[in-house]
Amino acid sequence: MNDHSKPTLDDVARAAGVSTATVSRCLNSPDQVIAATRLRVMQAVETLGYTPDFGGRALASRRTNTVGAIIPTMDNAIFARGLQSFQETLSRFGKTLLVASSNYDPAREREQMEALAGRGADGLLLIGSARPDMSTDYLRRRGIPFVRAWNLGSGDGHFVGFDNRAAAAMLAERVIAYGHRRLSMIAGVTQMNDRAADRMAGVRDAARAAGIADADLPVIEAAYTFEDGARAMGELMARTPRPSVVMCGNDVLAVGAMQRARELGLAMPADVSITGFDDIDLARVVTPELTTVRVPHRRMGEAAAEMLIRLITKQPVETHVKIPTAIVERGTLGPPRD
Amino acid sequence: MNDHSKPTLDDVARAAGVSTATVSRCLNSPDQVIAATRLRVMQAVETLGYTPDFGGRALASRRTNTVGAIIPTMDNAIFARGLQSFQETLSRFGKTLLVASSNYDPAREREQMEALAGRGADGLLLIGSARPDMSTDYLRRRGIPFVRAWNLGSGDGHFVGFDNRAAAAMLAERVIAYGHRRLSMIAGVTQMNDRAADRMAGVRDAARAAGIADADLPVIEAAYTFEDGARAMGELMARTPRPSVVMCGNDVLAVGAMQRARELGLAMPADVSITGFDDIDLARVVTPELTTVRVPHRRMGEAAAEMLIRLITKQPVETHVKIPTAIVERGTLGPPRD
Repeated sequence: MNDHSKPTLDDVARAAGVSTATVSRCLNSPDQVIAATRLRVMQAVETLGYTPDFGGRALASRRTNTVGAIIPTMDNAIFARGLQSFQETLSRFGKTLLVASSNYDPAREREQMEALAGRGADGLLLIGSARPDMSTDYLRRRGIPFVRAWNLGSGDGHFVGFDNRAAAAMLAERVIAYGHRRLSMIAGVTQMNDRAADRMAGVRDAARAAGIADADLPVIEAAYTFEDGARAMGELMARTPRPSVVMCGNDVLAVGAMQRARELGLAMPADVSITGFDDIDLARVVTPELTTVRVPHRRMGEAAAEMLIRLITKQPVETHVKIPTAIVERGTLGPPRD
Repeated sequence: MNDHSKPTLDDVARAAGVSTATVSRCLNSPDQVIAATRLRVMQAVETLGYTPDFGGRALASRRTNTVGAIIPTMDNAIFARGLQSFQETLSRFGKTLLVASSNYDPAREREQMEALAGRGADGLLLIGSARPDMSTDYLRRRGIPFVRAWNLGSGDGHFVGFDNRAAAAMLAERVIAYGHRRLSMIAGVTQMNDRAADRMAGVRDAARAAGIADADLPVIEAAYTFEDGARAMGELMARTPRPSVVMCGNDVLAVGAMQRARELGLAMPADVSITGFDDIDLARVVTPELTTVRVPHRRMGEAAAEMLIRLITKQPVETHVKIPTAIVERGTLGPPRD
């Protein structure tokens, strides 16, 4: 090897005492090479300072061992736990995960798709189904497999998720069984968010079934921050008659609502009941602990990773994997005072 | 344009009524093209289904308009807020952010550097300075600018951060000023985490200055989860004499410690004081609210993005930007009972 030129694949193969095909396999499909060989090749790569040309690699193997995920936000814990297990499962298959966050903006999500697809991501994880068809068409046109998680879609494609609508309805039924009639809701912003829209629909389903008209169920849509939850809670508590229960579109909104309830001197659940959705860690650190819907985030992340790996490697795969949810009763839900 | 061939740059230029140079500029340096032209080009790209070859693009312009960030974990909110403002600032410059999480593992961080660098990231954000030199050498060899944030390094390079050691020492001085002598600490794992190590060193600095020997300051290192914080709290509270204050390496550990204190029937701060570090949203949702160190995460994220953009565009740039911190006194710190 000439000291002044860039090291080549041949140099690496010679240094590691293997064939260039083995070096390629180590770089492109490390899971197909035994650990001792892989280590020797990686040491040679390191020593020589060999930097593979990923563009060429991608063309040669048609796989880059990178998977992308585009999530709506990194700013709270809703997606963190599921994404962590998604990543852990991928890494068992030698895949590196790159994550982009779209801030619930379909145009930005589309740019991020192009950034990930254009750099040869083997596959993508998307959250939910509310996006312009143009975006999924783009991925289909490029032949990039993708899985949609956190909700179950009805159309073509591959989904790992849970039934947001049925889960919200089940929680609302439980609320109504406690004797509540003056329901209210702080929903996530439903525009371009099918999870938020489905949860709102679920609460309305249960209310209607119990004879509560939509007009008697005030709903405020709020962005997913404590502050927005608190602000919406203030508005709901100023209404006459005052709602006896506030069902929140997720735990972050619920904790914001709890903060405002405390500031207003309202005891939970005696003066007002509050429920969440997701069962993120937060739900157990507030006082009283939050009644919510448990979503098995880790299991969903694993299932999504396995589905995506199967799609990438062209193995047979289920199209819809449904993850069960459960109601977790803690301290914030009780019977109404009257 | 032949219907059966892939659309080319020429096809896009013709459809948009601009030169191919303008199309290139739209794709490579969108901030240098006026909005109306950019929109026309993007519509032509969309209509024709033109998919730029990012490999070629990267070679042509030497910029891909993608920036990478490698953070230790997505599983709690420590990095989320700073990253969000990092992304917002980048997007004003037309950059897409891709994030990888290393799980505090330097080998995985290195793989992720290669994935991002190999796909032509214009620059990288790294957290802290504790990593093998090999990793930063790799980036220097490839000529990829990088900024290290969340701590200030002493060596060469570019840093946006705060003085973790001084901030922890200042909080410990405040604790000692309340009359506490039986200090203890639940620190983050210090291995390959300079922020955790510096915070531990800061608490010890202040304790020594007050005549408290290291042997009288029990420290337990714990992973950054509620459960690990709770477990460490249990161990500390079982000691004789029982510490009168538990200083935690971050807010997540502190909230875990608070949960265990409550389970043990210990009132805060009457029976035991607890402090955190970071002032993430969590600190204000617990009861009592947590005394902690405020880190201006948004400001740090913005400053890091601006520094990285300057490095990428080869403008003059400061090498060390120090972000101030502040002690936030809330309900969990008070005088010891005795």
